[in-house]
Amino acid sequence: SSNIRLAVIPGDGIGTEVVAEGLKVLDAAGVKVDATHYDLGAKRYHATGETLPDSVLDELRGFDAILLGAVGDPSVPPGVLERDLLLKLRFELDHYVNLRPVKLFPGVETPLGKVQPGEIDMIVVREGTEGPYAGAGGVLRKGTPQEIATQDSVNTAHGVERVVRYAFAKAASRERRKLTLVHKTNVLTFAGDLWQRTVNRVAAEFPQVTADYCHVDAASMFFVSQPQRFDVIVTDNLFGDILTDIGAAIAGGIGLAASGNVNPDRTAPSMFEPVHGSAPDIAGQHKADPTATVLSVAMLLDHLGLGDAAARVEQAVADDLVERQGAWAARRTREIGDDIAARVAG
Amino acid sequence: SSNIRLAVIPGDGIGTEVVAEGLKVLDAAGVKVDATHYDLGAKRYHATGETLPDSVLDELRGFDAILLGAVGDPSVPPGVLERDLLLKLRFELDHYVNLRPVKLFPGVETPLGKVQPGEIDMIVVREGTEGPYAGAGGVLRKGTPQEIATQDSVNTAHGVERVVRYAFAKAASRERRKLTLVHKTNVLTFAGDLWQRTVNRVAAEFPQVTADYCHVDAASMFFVSQPQRFDVIVTDNLFGDILTDIGAAIAGGIGLAASGNVNPDRTAPSMFEPVHGSAPDIAGQHKADPTATVLSVAMLLDHLGLGDAAARVEQAVADDLVERQGAWAARRTREIGDDIAARVAG
Ligand SMILES: CC(C)[C@H](C(=O)O)[C@@H](O)C(=O)O
Ligand SMILES: CC(C)[C@H](C(=O)O)[C@@H](O)C(=O)O
Repeated sequence: SSNIRLAVIPGDGIGTEVVAEGLKVLDAAGVKVDATHYDLGAKRYHATGETLPDSVLDELRGFDAILLGAVGDPSVPPGVLERDLLLKLRFELDHYVNLRPVKLFPGVETPLGKVQPGEIDMIVVREGTEGPYAGAGGVLRKGTPQEIATQDSVNTAHGVERVVRYAFAKAASRERRKLTLVHKTNVLTFAGDLWQRTVNRVAAEFPQVTADYCHVDAASMFFVSQPQRFDVIVTDNLFGDILTDIGAAIAGGIGLAASGNVNPDRTAPSMFEPVHGSAPDIAGQHKADPTATVLSVAMLLDHLGLGDAAARVEQAVADDLVERQGAWAARRTREIGDDIAARVAG
Repeated sequence: SSNIRLAVIPGDGIGTEVVAEGLKVLDAAGVKVDATHYDLGAKRYHATGETLPDSVLDELRGFDAILLGAVGDPSVPPGVLERDLLLKLRFELDHYVNLRPVKLFPGVETPLGKVQPGEIDMIVVREGTEGPYAGAGGVLRKGTPQEIATQDSVNTAHGVERVVRYAFAKAASRERRKLTLVHKTNVLTFAGDLWQRTVNRVAAEFPQVTADYCHVDAASMFFVSQPQRFDVIVTDNLFGDILTDIGAAIAGGIGLAASGNVNPDRTAPSMFEPVHGSAPDIAGQHKADPTATVLSVAMLLDHLGLGDAAARVEQAVADDLVERQGAWAARRTREIGDDIAARVAG
């Protein structure tokens, strides 16, 4: 089969370091890749004022997939790189499924004292192209005592239904076949009602899936007190952002949390990235854990139909994590990548 | 001094049970109270269609304080009792500070394996009268594939500044004197910018307070991985709702989480309530822990200037919690109330 055409956006901070290890593991898996690097992020923004030029966006559409490190730097005003680069990619490439597994691997320390591996094994299906992330809203009388700032969540039947249907199909493919809608229907009644009605309707197509509902505040609590409750979660863009960081915390930390920004209709390439940010405080110090990026690479392989290679990468990570026990932070970024790559190759 | 005029709204589910214990402890503290009960909640809604009649709201304005149990029942459509009763009270009585301590008492079990009492001791100052809770938004083409539902967060300089100033003053009164703004400024740029500019400006009035910022996703993670980070948090209505449930989870569960809906300008009575809901699944079974309500009563006393009585109630709870160790769920609702009341009286 022909080579995978991969666009690589290392981005800012530790992005460069972790992406290098992701590519190393991809290579070790024997996957043939034509990689093209794009220098998007803070540096380019400072040099040219550009975040994501249309020409680059157009080029990106031609790839099979995108691997992204991290975006964001304190030297850039809040929101510029996030909204005009990262979110623009997710929105323009119609990544309506932001897929975020929350799984406690054996050997990994969790802050939860009594939870065992196997008790945390869920997938959060976060909507990726609308909701409170729409960028809608505005400000009047800025800087005066009469200032008013609004921020509007935009939810469409089209947008909600497609991600809900994806989540039901995902739940149907898993052992427990359970789907939980997380929202705040008792307060955000307009948006919540659309989400709840959509789940009720799509549920009829998936009689084998048990669907239930949980308010976002209670769900956040249950992530800590009873993570066993959850199998597949479907939720909006903002609630998904929050829940998956709690998920990262309970499943061993942000250094292990992988994600895929998926366009299930394949009208544009999907994009895979660790959940963590650019962590400017530790950038360049070889301290970043590349495991989240490596697990994101496994998701990428899976998305491209290379299930065997994906399974080998995930198994290599699982084995590495068992061996890593008690030796956290002892290895440098590159060494972790080397160790995982050796397992994949070997 | 004259009796406290207290309005009591037991509400739904376990609300009645826990409020009875709160009143018992108030009595044991030797505080003279004239209590008037109001039968608001699901029962009244079903009987009369009323949630919070204007006449009742007017009467409530005349009290010194309100004690509320819990509101909400599955027999009522989502949002009706929440929006038209509970949130209406918070909004109409201008409870712009929703004060929620997150404190791990000695003797209390936390799901966090390595955290000690003293390491979780923060106060979340949640905005209570605007933001995503404004009820703004709407729906078009309901039930069709072209449906669109919006939900708008409304933030005003007036509303943000007063709660931020309260939070700074609270931080200034504490040992660590640290204030953290929690928001999502990198995505919710309109609202986030107003919050951040307001914090920056008010900070100049409180040079003794160290102010920092944390995104809501990261903050949710840090509640689990590094709760020691936080002293006073100021945040919007929705983020505060989510954070305080995580706070309840890490500090021993929702059975212990107290709150005050405070009108610091005293233009209307403040309202004190446990963070937990009406828990219809265990209602009437004497299983509910009244401790959160008792701690809310302590906050009520403190608000009314009865600091000594407040301290005695809090100390009684602290002592009860130490003694309770290993005996969770052994006592019924009434027994817990009796035990705490006896300590307060004794
Ligand atoms: C950087 C930020 C815009 C982003 C988000 O909020 O989606 C991040 O937190 C994430 O979860 O991928
Ligand atoms: C019942 C609900 C409206 C309420 C809220 O969202 O504020 C509750 O969750 C709380 O935290 O007091």
